[in-house]
Amino acid sequence: MREAIEAEARRKLIEVARGDAPADTLLKNARLVNVRSGEVHDADIAIFEGRVAGFGDYEARETRDLKGRFVCPGLIDAHVHIESSMVTVPEFARAVVPRGTTAVVTDPHEIANVLGVPGIRYMLDASEGLPLRVFVMASSCVPATDMETSGAKLEAADLQPLFDHPRVIGLAEVMNFPGVFLGVPEVLAKIEAAGDRPVDGHSPGLTGPPLNAYAAAGIGSDHECTQEDEAREKLRRGMHIFIREGTTARNLEALLPLVTPHNSANCSFCTDDRHPEDLLDEGHIDALVRMAVARGLDPLTAIQMATINTANYFGLRGLGMVAPGYRADLVVADDLADFRARQVWVAGRVVAEEGEYVGPRPKPPAPPGSGVRVKWEGLGLAVPAAGDGRARVIQAVPGQIVTGQSVEKLRVENGQAVADPARDLLKIAVIERHRGSGNLGVGFVRGFGLQRGAIASTVAHDNHNIVVVGASDAEMLAAARAVAETGGGQAVVADGEVLAAVPLSIAGLMSELPLEEVRDRVAAMGEAARRLGGTLPDPLMTMSFLALAVIPELKLTDLGLVDVGSFQLVPLFVS
Amino acid sequence: MREAIEAEARRKLIEVARGDAPADTLLKNARLVNVRSGEVHDADIAIFEGRVAGFGDYEARETRDLKGRFVCPGLIDAHVHIESSMVTVPEFARAVVPRGTTAVVTDPHEIANVLGVPGIRYMLDASEGLPLRVFVMASSCVPATDMETSGAKLEAADLQPLFDHPRVIGLAEVMNFPGVFLGVPEVLAKIEAAGDRPVDGHSPGLTGPPLNAYAAAGIGSDHECTQEDEAREKLRRGMHIFIREGTTARNLEALLPLVTPHNSANCSFCTDDRHPEDLLDEGHIDALVRMAVARGLDPLTAIQMATINTANYFGLRGLGMVAPGYRADLVVADDLADFRARQVWVAGRVVAEEGEYVGPRPKPPAPPGSGVRVKWEGLGLAVPAAGDGRARVIQAVPGQIVTGQSVEKLRVENGQAVADPARDLLKIAVIERHRGSGNLGVGFVRGFGLQRGAIASTVAHDNHNIVVVGASDAEMLAAARAVAETGGGQAVVADGEVLAAVPLSIAGLMSELPLEEVRDRVAAMGEAARRLGGTLPDPLMTMSFLALAVIPELKLTDLGLVDVGSFQLVPLFVS
Repeated sequence: MREAIEAEARRKLIEVARGDAPADTLLKNARLVNVRSGEVHDADIAIFEGRVAGFGDYEARETRDLKGRFVCPGLIDAHVHIESSMVTVPEFARAVVPRGTTAVVTDPHEIANVLGVPGIRYMLDASEGLPLRVFVMASSCVPATDMETSGAKLEAADLQPLFDHPRVIGLAEVMNFPGVFLGVPEVLAKIEAAGDRPVDGHSPGLTGPPLNAYAAAGIGSDHECTQEDEAREKLRRGMHIFIREGTTARNLEALLPLVTPHNSANCSFCTDDRHPEDLLDEGHIDALVRMAVARGLDPLTAIQMATINTANYFGLRGLGMVAPGYRADLVVADDLADFRARQVWVAGRVVAEEGEYVGPRPKPPAPPGSGVRVKWEGLGLAVPAAGDGRARVIQAVPGQIVTGQSVEKLRVENGQAVADPARDLLKIAVIERHRGSGNLGVGFVRGFGLQRGAIASTVAHDNHNIVVVGASDAEMLAAARAVAETGGGQAVVADGEVLAAVPLSIAGLMSELPLEEVRDRVAAMGEAARRLGGTLPDPLMTMSFLALAVIPELKLTDLGLVDVGSFQLVPLFVS
Repeated sequence: MREAIEAEARRKLIEVARGDAPADTLLKNARLVNVRSGEVHDADIAIFEGRVAGFGDYEARETRDLKGRFVCPGLIDAHVHIESSMVTVPEFARAVVPRGTTAVVTDPHEIANVLGVPGIRYMLDASEGLPLRVFVMASSCVPATDMETSGAKLEAADLQPLFDHPRVIGLAEVMNFPGVFLGVPEVLAKIEAAGDRPVDGHSPGLTGPPLNAYAAAGIGSDHECTQEDEAREKLRRGMHIFIREGTTARNLEALLPLVTPHNSANCSFCTDDRHPEDLLDEGHIDALVRMAVARGLDPLTAIQMATINTANYFGLRGLGMVAPGYRADLVVADDLADFRARQVWVAGRVVAEEGEYVGPRPKPPAPPGSGVRVKWEGLGLAVPAAGDGRARVIQAVPGQIVTGQSVEKLRVENGQAVADPARDLLKIAVIERHRGSGNLGVGFVRGFGLQRGAIASTVAHDNHNIVVVGASDAEMLAAARAVAETGGGQAVVADGEVLAAVPLSIAGLMSELPLEEVRDRVAAMGEAARRLGGTLPDPLMTMSFLALAVIPELKLTDLGLVDVGSFQLVPLFVS
């Protein structure tokens, strides 16, 4: 899509393109993956002041012989929550740029739930000066429900000023899909505020008339499809499909059969949420390209889905292809069947080389604060037994964000319902951490296996209160205090001692540590949990979804247990 | 592309879509050509207040059973000069809407050359209230050269206010491609004025570094390709290719091999210029779909090129597909292999039925005036012989807009060079008609064959002065006066009598008569010319390009003969 280039820059670019002034750089002997003409062709690519000037044998200040290597446009992630990387935007860039990603469209939904608009502005500020173009969709669903306390509440009027920022390009995934198809005025007002900008969707399993209504409201995309038929129904209704392959939600294999030569232009790739380990081991959008090609997708189509299709959907001007006038954001690779970035260029400069980030490291803005404010005085996790002691218990499911539920007769000591590690019945608490309200939800959970100790985290979608699971109230409080003391974080505690932890001092979501260290600390926490008897492969990840009241079946917020099926708060004890 | 729907309309559309209020219309048992999901599938299509509400079994005030007929989005012409139809915009709509065209992107280049910005505004006004969505690209090249006198000169500052009009969506074909690649400030200023709106190109045969520069300047499309390789080179450089099949320029067959599943999304169809006879006999964009399919293009791809691809390129919001929230502009057809519109809907209403226009007929705005202002006093076509009487002669080529040229010894009578019908050497004059300047160019032309009489026309690309060809000065002046007397037009005259004529009282370009009558009168003029000895299949068409100084080889303007190769005025007599 055409970009309005500043007049003097355009004049000079034209001068270079017609051959009357030297280019900055000439990439000779490239095999260009031309996502526009839909072919791979030989090209010498002239670059000037960050843009492609033309193809041909240009005079240039610097010439590089690519010796027949492939060049394709920089990859674009259509939908990602950077917070899930648990690191700052520059650290995230350091991880994904060497993989070939040169632009992302992010929904700062997590930090918005903690810090509101200042959190969104922090993410915008933190992405200045990076060789990664970070486009922001204004977070549409803060808080996610009214059965929880988050750090902010964003109405249409709060979002409106964000659209004046040149990198805020639309409205982020409207997770409140019932609010859309039921025509709730506050929800429609946010769509209204977006004007004719793109509005992303999030409508797992939505079908029939409600889906028609959701699409008719102007929702332009969906990244929550898990079934081919579901995706086809949405595509038929005009929605652009983002095929997602994240850490938890992995849909690429199921959705790939959807893609045909007649509709591939309306499909893109996204990661949504990728944790540090996956970013480092698997990669980013490059991993989706490899997976798709390995599963039979034509490499050119896969690269189109990772570049131009996404640029077109979002109207990202000057991005998504390597062509005169477009930004010189490109990836050099040896192989399209096993696509790996050898070299990455952004705005005409090498920013990654053989997997190493060599781009600029601008001074990041001051951290926006942790957003941890807990009323500790009088905070006790004791649960007086009631009725016959039968209670609703959350059933954690390994590797899933859904839970089961059961009714169990709890162990009672001195009139208090307590954890019973022998039966894998642990206590879980959600401690409100944004306003110091003293709000506290306490319940019981099965599936963690801890025999002693406790695990706490300030990452708890979407409200990001402190969630803590443990074998005793004392250990749980110790763990909760441990994460609060680092200004947010995650910790595994036993016998009053922190066994492993990661500080997440930025909104309680992101660390100021390098990505590798965060990855190692997360692994160490898993190991610590296993030493305490833990049985889940990734207890912190599982725990981070136990407060997410929009995902079935039984969840816990700072206001209490939520039966997601009936979408209401329910008492702990059954009567 | 998402359209910002007015809040109350959106609320009601959502209500209908979710099934809580009846639709206006349900089209049952359609086979929907879904240009988004790239398939044909069964659908019942609910329509409400001019938009598609959803697919499914909806309650509706009116239900129509389509009995398995195909439904596809309304067709879009990516580039057309409506003036070439020689009729008003409502008459043009009456011709093309029954063919399935529901939107056109027009460059009012001809009327802009006569009347300037008021001419463009007249076209906008004249398209209000029609069941044809007329989008305007602001004319970029008025006048075409400085070797002629046109009725207006449009600078960037003149164009800028036009962009405030909701249907002015970009900058029209920048025919002055040397001006772009040479970086002429006045030309770049127009591109600048367009901001990030689309800027159409026009660069026949442009290649290499100049083409890179043209693309780098931000030119987004081209409709002048005549060769597959030429189109591929432009596509590779990021340009969207409009495949043209007009009355004179017919490129579809040559360009069709360009289109592949990997690039078809970047190709569209356009007509550029279609004369009355072709509109009535062949049709409009439907004719291109039929031709393309007959030549082997997949029908779904052909319909995508005629709809969504064009909507995407121009950013036409709410158009190009049949999907919830999109405008209910659609075509009902029996067959995709031989695509013919049986019924056409615009904004949810039937506007054509079995080839008959049944849409609204809004009162057209007052004609903007003919723009015919000639200084007749003292106007004489006499050419004093000079030198040895050898002169440059234009060679008309049947059916082509290019000419040849030769040097001939002219017949001289009483010291004047005169027409010599026996040798098929006629006189040609271009009389300035915009400002009453008295400017007059006189030359000689071969190829018309007239033995007596004269033919005159106020349609003379791009300056649209009066062009007249004839066997004697008296007949020529009579013909010129005849077209001036009808406020512009075309006429064949002999012995002081008008044998056949068409009045073109709107800017001297368009008639207030119905399309059929214009077609018949054009045919009658051709017959009259043949009765006078004329040998060209369409002498008026040929004549209308004899003043076009940007097309080789030898042309005549009101300032004199133009040698297009050297791009300069040259004397009639060679020395």
